[in-house]
Amino acid sequence: MPRTRLQIYLGVGHSLGPGKIQLLEAVKEHGSISAAARSMKMAYRHAWDLLDDMNRCFQDPVVHGGRGGHAGGGATVTPFGEEVISRFRAMERRATKAIAADLAALDEHVCD
Amino acid sequence: MPRTRLQIYLGVGHSLGPGKIQLLEAVKEHGSISAAARSMKMAYRHAWDLLDDMNRCFQDPVVHGGRGGHAGGGATVTPFGEEVISRFRAMERRATKAIAADLAALDEHVCD
Repeated sequence: MPRTRLQIYLGVGHSLGPGKIQLLEAVKEHGSISAAARSMKMAYRHAWDLLDDMNRCFQDPVVHGGRGGHAGGGATVTPFGEEVISRFRAMERRATKAIAADLAALDEHVCD
Repeated sequence: MPRTRLQIYLGVGHSLGPGKIQLLEAVKEHGSISAAARSMKMAYRHAWDLLDDMNRCFQDPVVHGGRGGHAGGGATVTPFGEEVISRFRAMERRATKAIAADLAALDEHVCD
């Protein structure tokens, strides 16, 4: 089954793709950066960098808290962060739908 | 100005994105893999691997020739390869159009 991966570039040097969005969803689910990182088998430092990049990309933060290191306090996704998640997932659905016919046509030529 | 990057996954372990498509367009323009690789500042071997991956991905090849190494003969994009190029570029246009409103809305929150 063919799949699509959407990546968007916002401002200078900032990009947003399924990896960062999945991390944001994991912070929302687990309530901490370290637990979110663990759930994605990602180094804490890498998760922190990705979230920091998103916080710097936008005028409003996407995540609050979680600056206390590995054993630090919890982190929460802000209302704006929730908007970023839902908008990105909607964009994926819209893009996938827009190219579904082309993808199916290409898929007919793919080797088994 | 926000941009979008589309990557599609076809079959097991095969993906197609703007890099491979640009390489295919360069082979079409330059008529050889080595010249196409040079035009993209890409190692010949890497270009060869990417084209080989595309040739293996589909039932029909996207490129003919060019197996003669650095100083080898020319390479041509097949009619099917041309179809892959134009279909991928159409998919990019369709996906970009489908998410334009969301991208503009997100862009309003981006730091300057």
